[in-house]
Amino acid sequence: MNLINGIAGDTISLHDRGWNYGDGVFRTLVLRDGRPCLWPRHYAKLHDDCRRLRIACPESSLLEQDLRRLTAQQPDCVVRITVTRGAAERGYAIPPDVAPTRVVAAAPLPVFPAEYRSHGIRAHFCHTRLAIQPALAGIKHLNRLENILARAEWNDPEIAEGVVCDTDGNVISGTMSNLFAVFGSDLATPDVSRCGVAGVQRQRVLELAGANGIPARVATFDYERLLEADEVFIVNSVFGIWQITALGSRTWRSGTLTPQFRQWLDADG
Amino acid sequence: MNLINGIAGDTISLHDRGWNYGDGVFRTLVLRDGRPCLWPRHYAKLHDDCRRLRIACPESSLLEQDLRRLTAQQPDCVVRITVTRGAAERGYAIPPDVAPTRVVAAAPLPVFPAEYRSHGIRAHFCHTRLAIQPALAGIKHLNRLENILARAEWNDPEIAEGVVCDTDGNVISGTMSNLFAVFGSDLATPDVSRCGVAGVQRQRVLELAGANGIPARVATFDYERLLEADEVFIVNSVFGIWQITALGSRTWRSGTLTPQFRQWLDADG
Repeated sequence: MNLINGIAGDTISLHDRGWNYGDGVFRTLVLRDGRPCLWPRHYAKLHDDCRRLRIACPESSLLEQDLRRLTAQQPDCVVRITVTRGAAERGYAIPPDVAPTRVVAAAPLPVFPAEYRSHGIRAHFCHTRLAIQPALAGIKHLNRLENILARAEWNDPEIAEGVVCDTDGNVISGTMSNLFAVFGSDLATPDVSRCGVAGVQRQRVLELAGANGIPARVATFDYERLLEADEVFIVNSVFGIWQITALGSRTWRSGTLTPQFRQWLDADG
Repeated sequence: MNLINGIAGDTISLHDRGWNYGDGVFRTLVLRDGRPCLWPRHYAKLHDDCRRLRIACPESSLLEQDLRRLTAQQPDCVVRITVTRGAAERGYAIPPDVAPTRVVAAAPLPVFPAEYRSHGIRAHFCHTRLAIQPALAGIKHLNRLENILARAEWNDPEIAEGVVCDTDGNVISGTMSNLFAVFGSDLATPDVSRCGVAGVQRQRVLELAGANGIPARVATFDYERLLEADEVFIVNSVFGIWQITALGSRTWRSGTLTPQFRQWLDADG
């Protein structure tokens, strides 16, 4: 089931600026037993992303109403919430009277191989680099061609994710996830103030690390340095947390921090 | 009138990757007396942009058929041709069986103040910078948030365009146009191999300069240098060519090359 401005449907206007220019933002979250996981965090992030693009974010009550209607039909699913600038005439200028489009769309929960969780995943090192654009960095906006190009670099179904650097060679994230690396007793995650997305799970891991006395920091490191890490894991709101156990020719044994954070994330989610 | 995969309509699928990720390209051209202006060039550019994103470009005959149907109803209009990767399930990975979406949409010809053509325009110097991304540079793709942010910097209706630099401070283009600057006897246009769009009119101006013995080159220059130019003009496929006669506090008298190129462009268009 999909709701477009609260009305069930499967299509949007050709004049929607989301379609014409990628002028909007989105969130992907899990509905489990009818409950939108981490909803306050997802709404806060949606609101903040809208604010940065000067899009009027729909009230949380409207979205919660939409989510309840989805829940009735699909208590367990992945939900994508998209908010675009809305439909408008041709041209980049934002018309003063434009009204945002909100779409709440359900998709089946993906099924991942059990070993991703139990043993970790293989990752590809992407040649595609992320451009440095502080004005858009951190936002989960609809301009996602870089992610698509990076994801298109491999077809091997054994590879679950790609690691992406920025054009300066700094590691930033996965194509669809945030990344953490353990160096000795420190937990590091790339800076996403110049490119990349500041995901909800990334923020949770940083907070959980702080709450549990694990030194965690936002850091700048390149691919060579990443390969020296003692443990590497990725997070997002759909799969949760996976350890990277193979990246290029580097392999890692099962680590201890990934299952530890999984436990904390699950307990708190 | 709008045609979606050859069928009249006003909506597209929620699952279209153009809407979900900006995964597509577009062209904006003028239909005059039922004739799509510069059609072979526009199709060649569309085809090349699709190739770079590995989207299967629709055959020209299909698009020409769509254009003829538009023409019958609106012989004079602006046409936007959009080709997206097509509709697909969730995720950045490109499904092997995805079929492109082609949309041919008509809008009224815009009416610009007569003095833009006769005397030139005022332009704003944009603070928004274009990120350096060679993998996408030159392509008229659907990821246009940078253009939107740049265009949102001014509301003054007296200002017709904004001049945009990249994050290194090099002048690249207007928000919706390509830019040329005259330095002495040389005509220069910014390099668009790292960001920006390689427009059809830009290519025509370069060719017309060559054919008419005007030294023209692709060059790298910053805003300070642009202000030292003897004449500056912008081009696109809808308005043609306008001189910039005011930019920040700098003003220029009416130049000679802008009307000269207009004559050549009109004769050839």
